[in-house]
Amino acid sequence: MSDSTVKYTMQERDMPRYWYNVQADLPVPLAPALHPGTGKPLTPPDLAPLFPMALIMQEVSTERYIEIPDEVRDVYKLWRPTTLFRARRLEKALGTPAKIFYKYEGVSPAGSHKPNTAVAQAYYNKKEGIKRMSTETGAGQWGSALAFAGACFGLEVKVYMVRVSYDQKPYRRIMMEAWGAKCVPSPSPDTSVGRQMLAEDPKCPGSLGLAISEAVEDAMSREDTHYSLGSVLNHVLLHQTVIGLEAKKMMEEIGEYPDIIVGCVGGGSNSAGMFLPFLKDKLDGSKPNLRVVNVEPYSCPTLTKGPFAYDYGDSAKLAPIVKMYTLGHRYMPPPIHAGGLRYHGMSPIISHLLKLGYVEARAVHQLETFEAGILFARTEGILSAPETMHAIRAAIDEALVCKKTGEAKTILFNHSGHGHVDMNAYDAYLSGKLQNYEYPSEKVKEALADLPRVS
Amino acid sequence: MSDSTVKYTMQERDMPRYWYNVQADLPVPLAPALHPGTGKPLTPPDLAPLFPMALIMQEVSTERYIEIPDEVRDVYKLWRPTTLFRARRLEKALGTPAKIFYKYEGVSPAGSHKPNTAVAQAYYNKKEGIKRMSTETGAGQWGSALAFAGACFGLEVKVYMVRVSYDQKPYRRIMMEAWGAKCVPSPSPDTSVGRQMLAEDPKCPGSLGLAISEAVEDAMSREDTHYSLGSVLNHVLLHQTVIGLEAKKMMEEIGEYPDIIVGCVGGGSNSAGMFLPFLKDKLDGSKPNLRVVNVEPYSCPTLTKGPFAYDYGDSAKLAPIVKMYTLGHRYMPPPIHAGGLRYHGMSPIISHLLKLGYVEARAVHQLETFEAGILFARTEGILSAPETMHAIRAAIDEALVCKKTGEAKTILFNHSGHGHVDMNAYDAYLSGKLQNYEYPSEKVKEALADLPRVS
Repeated sequence: MSDSTVKYTMQERDMPRYWYNVQADLPVPLAPALHPGTGKPLTPPDLAPLFPMALIMQEVSTERYIEIPDEVRDVYKLWRPTTLFRARRLEKALGTPAKIFYKYEGVSPAGSHKPNTAVAQAYYNKKEGIKRMSTETGAGQWGSALAFAGACFGLEVKVYMVRVSYDQKPYRRIMMEAWGAKCVPSPSPDTSVGRQMLAEDPKCPGSLGLAISEAVEDAMSREDTHYSLGSVLNHVLLHQTVIGLEAKKMMEEIGEYPDIIVGCVGGGSNSAGMFLPFLKDKLDGSKPNLRVVNVEPYSCPTLTKGPFAYDYGDSAKLAPIVKMYTLGHRYMPPPIHAGGLRYHGMSPIISHLLKLGYVEARAVHQLETFEAGILFARTEGILSAPETMHAIRAAIDEALVCKKTGEAKTILFNHSGHGHVDMNAYDAYLSGKLQNYEYPSEKVKEALADLPRVS
Repeated sequence: MSDSTVKYTMQERDMPRYWYNVQADLPVPLAPALHPGTGKPLTPPDLAPLFPMALIMQEVSTERYIEIPDEVRDVYKLWRPTTLFRARRLEKALGTPAKIFYKYEGVSPAGSHKPNTAVAQAYYNKKEGIKRMSTETGAGQWGSALAFAGACFGLEVKVYMVRVSYDQKPYRRIMMEAWGAKCVPSPSPDTSVGRQMLAEDPKCPGSLGLAISEAVEDAMSREDTHYSLGSVLNHVLLHQTVIGLEAKKMMEEIGEYPDIIVGCVGGGSNSAGMFLPFLKDKLDGSKPNLRVVNVEPYSCPTLTKGPFAYDYGDSAKLAPIVKMYTLGHRYMPPPIHAGGLRYHGMSPIISHLLKLGYVEARAVHQLETFEAGILFARTEGILSAPETMHAIRAAIDEALVCKKTGEAKTILFNHSGHGHVDMNAYDAYLSGKLQNYEYPSEKVKEALADLPRVS
């Protein structure tokens, strides 16, 4: 029997019942988030206009395991548990002794890991009597995930989509509408932040930081509405740990444990969702040699080039100030196709773990990510999102190191989503039109000059 | 515990080892296929320039079970066995006592059921020493499936894509290229059929029948190349029975048996792939009341309006003449978004079963299919292909009949694929720009005047 396809599945009844909260195991606690207006540590009531109390408490909780509500698990079951594959065809093509495993999150209705938290957030908001949610989206992965989640729980969803993506990537906007959400280009005339920007520059292409500002303003100005964020925050990473908890259980069953875990990072939630349940074993000393590699684009190298500093989450300074690696809240990254990785900051949890030396970071160029993505498509079959190609690239590079050294290391990466609506990016690469972008150090220097002054 | 999500999975080791061949159980054998040049019954050597001998023998075999090669099962395992869902959220939205089940084939790399046969065809060609395969594609589902299969077995693939789709739906073309296939618009300057058409009309939008002619000519003119067809033929339906065999086993395990099976039909392979293993029980008399509903577009109503007659499979009369329901090989259906259902004929097996009274047929309008597809997206989460929406429509209609009668019937439909690259069609529907097309009876009358004269 041919045995190129090796995959591992989990019974639905074995799906995790608890998320893992790394805040229980951090050797040093996270620095507190600060109020964007006063600069003082945030209190739960400060966040109440934006989030339901259940999520606010998860944000600061130090309980190790937090129960996944039945209603959330019920929706998860539409696509979870997700399959763990061993990439045998890719291994053969590389000629590596390494074993490469990946967990495929692209089978969710919205096509990525994002619904893991979107569904949880919609549920808690519904439970607190909220009727409507506002959010921002860049390339559209997050907006479509929240649109799907809103449909599951009967919530209205309003998405502010960065205008340049709104115009260039209509498919994601249409997906949101198919699930019943309303999607407008940002800057929009629907908020004062948006109107001000449009008055200054009617053709403003928008940015993720600006779209966040619009969505936050929307939520703060309406009683029936809360805000929702798709990455960065502690509770978002918490919800994504369902990925790593499943992966860990599945690998235990086959007697494997990763030497290296790889994930792509924009805000950090898919990578952390995979590695945190494993990192627990490094934090408690039982797996001291576990390596975790966070991969970011060379043109938005938050972890590899930014300072570890307090900064705003959005450009209009409405979102909380958090301590993180950042390129400055005014930084506008070059237009790489991995739109989900174009964020100036990084989740405080990953930033903290990098600062403490528990995880690594690496930046890769756009062209080499597509080269990896095409090889993956032609061996493993899956057409990957440009974001995910960053993880594939680094996993391949680690496997090629093994080819040189002869070591049969076990590499695990999170395959965060499919690229079915990113075909224009594939076209650009295959027709030789794709380019690399150098690190714009002058722009970053300028953006970093505007960090908040925090005592 | 919430229990809206009810799904059934199968262990990989229980995946079928044999395809089911209905030709073993037909009460009356199929009418023979005829040579397009001589009008005489086709012999295996006639087909040898086009297909490997293994597929030619499957085409005429009357063995009940045909073994699935290990190498084919190995690739199937990338996404098979596929999940069987009970559509509880949809049932609730409809308020029906009916139980609705669907099997979801959209998880394959190419996004539909098509790889079930593409992989088998690529394997048998590879085994016979073939280096290159030619095929046609309309909206692109089939072409991308064969491109994926070619990548699996290291075969070159050349796809002739109907020009109007090539221009309007670039995403599918790019998918094919991502898997390494070459895709050209048809008519193309690469074949004499294509050159002739371009000379007559340089702006010719092409048709499926013409693209078939080009792909057949390509294969006949090169020693290293065979032709591949994605539906209609007996061996294609055979390969698709893996769907129904899985579904039957899974339903047996939960103690269910369908009262009604629904599938959408263009050439007929996904519908037949689901219903044939169940229909065996109707053919042998053990399930006399089983109903099978084949759903086609009102604008291409082959089964509901066409005569049962011998006709060519393609417009240039290069493909075999088969007995089937047909609207005439020169019929050009209106530009509905369900491109995969725009074929003038129908598989001889389904045609034969309809003629004998074992299955039913039904035509539905475009707007009502999208209405059903949107309801499905907002309840079950999946964004369906426009083709698949035809099955969803009919399944919903059967469930609504149950709502009136109070009967709790069990309805099973094949969910043939996702609609991730059909978002422009969703956009047209959601913005009120989609229309219905009346049945063009004059055009059909004209096309039917050109049926071959067969003694």
